[in-house]
Amino acid sequence: RTDSDRLWESLMEMAKLGATAKGGVNRQALTDLDRQGRDLFIQWCRAEGCTIRIDNIGNIFARREGSDPSAKAVMAGSHLDSQPTGGKYDGCFGVFSGLEVIRTLNQHNITTQSPIEVVAWTNEEGCRFPPCMMGSGVFTGELAFDTMMARTDADGVTVSDALDAIHYRGSDSVSPSEIKAYFEPHIEQGPILEDTDTTIGVVIGGLGQKWFDLTLTGLEAHAGPTPMNLRRDAMMGAAEVTQALNRIAFEHQPHGRGTVGCMTLHPGSRNVIPGQVKMTLDMRHWEPEALIAMGQAVAAAVEDICQRHGLAYELTPTADFAPEHFNKEYVDAVREGAKKLGLSHIDIISGAGHDAMFVGRVAPAAMIFIPCKDGISHNEIESATPEHVHAGCNVLLHAMLDAAGL
Amino acid sequence: RTDSDRLWESLMEMAKLGATAKGGVNRQALTDLDRQGRDLFIQWCRAEGCTIRIDNIGNIFARREGSDPSAKAVMAGSHLDSQPTGGKYDGCFGVFSGLEVIRTLNQHNITTQSPIEVVAWTNEEGCRFPPCMMGSGVFTGELAFDTMMARTDADGVTVSDALDAIHYRGSDSVSPSEIKAYFEPHIEQGPILEDTDTTIGVVIGGLGQKWFDLTLTGLEAHAGPTPMNLRRDAMMGAAEVTQALNRIAFEHQPHGRGTVGCMTLHPGSRNVIPGQVKMTLDMRHWEPEALIAMGQAVAAAVEDICQRHGLAYELTPTADFAPEHFNKEYVDAVREGAKKLGLSHIDIISGAGHDAMFVGRVAPAAMIFIPCKDGISHNEIESATPEHVHAGCNVLLHAMLDAAGL
Ligand SMILES: NC(=O)NCCC(=O)O
Ligand SMILES: NC(=O)NCCC(=O)O
Repeated sequence: RTDSDRLWESLMEMAKLGATAKGGVNRQALTDLDRQGRDLFIQWCRAEGCTIRIDNIGNIFARREGSDPSAKAVMAGSHLDSQPTGGKYDGCFGVFSGLEVIRTLNQHNITTQSPIEVVAWTNEEGCRFPPCMMGSGVFTGELAFDTMMARTDADGVTVSDALDAIHYRGSDSVSPSEIKAYFEPHIEQGPILEDTDTTIGVVIGGLGQKWFDLTLTGLEAHAGPTPMNLRRDAMMGAAEVTQALNRIAFEHQPHGRGTVGCMTLHPGSRNVIPGQVKMTLDMRHWEPEALIAMGQAVAAAVEDICQRHGLAYELTPTADFAPEHFNKEYVDAVREGAKKLGLSHIDIISGAGHDAMFVGRVAPAAMIFIPCKDGISHNEIESATPEHVHAGCNVLLHAMLDAAGL
Repeated sequence: RTDSDRLWESLMEMAKLGATAKGGVNRQALTDLDRQGRDLFIQWCRAEGCTIRIDNIGNIFARREGSDPSAKAVMAGSHLDSQPTGGKYDGCFGVFSGLEVIRTLNQHNITTQSPIEVVAWTNEEGCRFPPCMMGSGVFTGELAFDTMMARTDADGVTVSDALDAIHYRGSDSVSPSEIKAYFEPHIEQGPILEDTDTTIGVVIGGLGQKWFDLTLTGLEAHAGPTPMNLRRDAMMGAAEVTQALNRIAFEHQPHGRGTVGCMTLHPGSRNVIPGQVKMTLDMRHWEPEALIAMGQAVAAAVEDICQRHGLAYELTPTADFAPEHFNKEYVDAVREGAKKLGLSHIDIISGAGHDAMFVGRVAPAAMIFIPCKDGISHNEIESATPEHVHAGCNVLLHAMLDAAGL
């Protein structure tokens, strides 16, 4: 068994970096706080005798050798970056559970056949630089390195410059072919485990995602003398697009999702009809055809709405990931681990994107979910119990030992 | 006749203060650029021998004495502040037309019976500090001085502090009872004069206004795992409120107006359901009952929308002005002036709020409109021709001389 207190303490220590007044964390990708988190993680891994590799997008790999020099690695990991108003567990739970497995093996002097490797992927959240899962996306070839390097944040800073600024552009080449199995423990970020009073979610796969940036351009004019029928009001268009996205998501239940998370109005004056609105669209679904249909329906709605309101528009895809089904053998290993430990468990589909969904396309992957309070994440009030954190880490230990051999 | 070139040069000189790259002006109320504009105006008025008074909200009165010491003043004016993306004519045309009348009287050594006074009202735009027409509102008692002093901009700066910072809190007391007639020349800010190829709009009155700040509070949560039917998405509420406001405005044609000019989403991350949206609502109508009905319909819609989406809300009125009918005698004087000068003219209702609408409640008031290009204002591309500017100023001269007597 892993050490529950040790894991909890590491999580709480890490949560001090970027801690917010409301008890959450703001440690966005490639900021100086992200650097501090990475430094701390590496320091702790080195203390366990791990060797460190850093690749060209800043992914960090910490390796504990096995007895068989020809064996592929059994990996665990997740991410250290957070949302602007994020919580303590999203990402960190997976990374530090991996580290806790290594600490436990060291403590009990256990040698595995395969090497054990813990990975912290760069920019999983995608909130500062879209898309999400950028580090694992580049690692697996899902996302083009050069394109990602040129992505900018709201201030126009590129990923390339931000990576250099925190000195985490590495030169180690790490290949997906080195991976025997990849496990990612994570909080569920949804309400299902809590609602069903279940400790472990055996994740069978994850929703596909389509993200867009949308700019609507009309004509800014005075809110008083401009008759309603002569307006080209970009905000009217934005309101209708928001409703269309939601309607389309509702038409694709139970798996469809549609969210407008960002919107900025120009010029943003109370008595001026907005001449331009910039907004983001996030769509998800479990079935590939349904996700494609949702994307097409939204594009058609945007076209129609803009025509009716006399608006020009630019609809730019910023992320496009197919749904992912995890590796049956290792999903079974997670289920077996939960069973052996006597933990309640159900099969579950992830609504959030995870690095495991990219890794799963190039190597066998699986995930372990634990409940979070009220199903809330991407919120400073995000919360998980020490018991659930401990249970998830123990399932990871079982699944990794099963895959790595003794 | 007034001097067309002199007026145009003054307008162009003033437009240098806060000039934007796109040919407009950003000289918002009570900023240092506003101070520079005020200083320049006062300097020019002093050069014409005027005495200056500044009241407690920073309104500036520049007076040219008449022959009759007991006579009330004939006033002209408007405002020097602009929208963040404003134009060169909105406000300044009225103030500098008034100054041009004084310059013309001085040039021709004409003594009027009543004193002539030019006024520049504080914060007419209301974009930095709501509501609009703050200076004339305080002057006429429509707006409470103490309440206005405590109003804040987006950075939390109060009107009181901003007024002190530019040293324009005056101590002169100026009374509405001093006013015989108030005339305000202004660009139309709408498409009607241009569409009908008319030079002068004889303004019979202006739309009433209701402004609100609305905060919608739901629950921020992850855009992926949170099922559609369990969301409390503040942006969904904001989109529906925007549509409701527009629908209600369309139901009250031809005079109804509804505009959402500002909206901010919290936390503003592409894969987070917004937990809070702050937005502004601007409603207008010509009939008092219709304006009240619009306000009630919007309030009811907000209540219904928030109930359906599980949102809390705060709906705070920031401006509430009844429609204004101008003084018949001086409206006729404007019409007569246009006639005498052989200028095409039509009666028109102002969609924009103007200081004249407040002054009109405590003293006889009237307005003179000239066309602006494509009816566009509150936009850096706002434009008017020297010919129309000159024509409007000549009508002002006639109307003021008619009221002031020789
Ligand atoms: N797990 C997680 O929060 N991922 C962020 C990417 C997403 O929006 O799904
Ligand atoms: N004339 C003008 O632009 N006034 C600003 C107040 C309003 O929004 O009507």
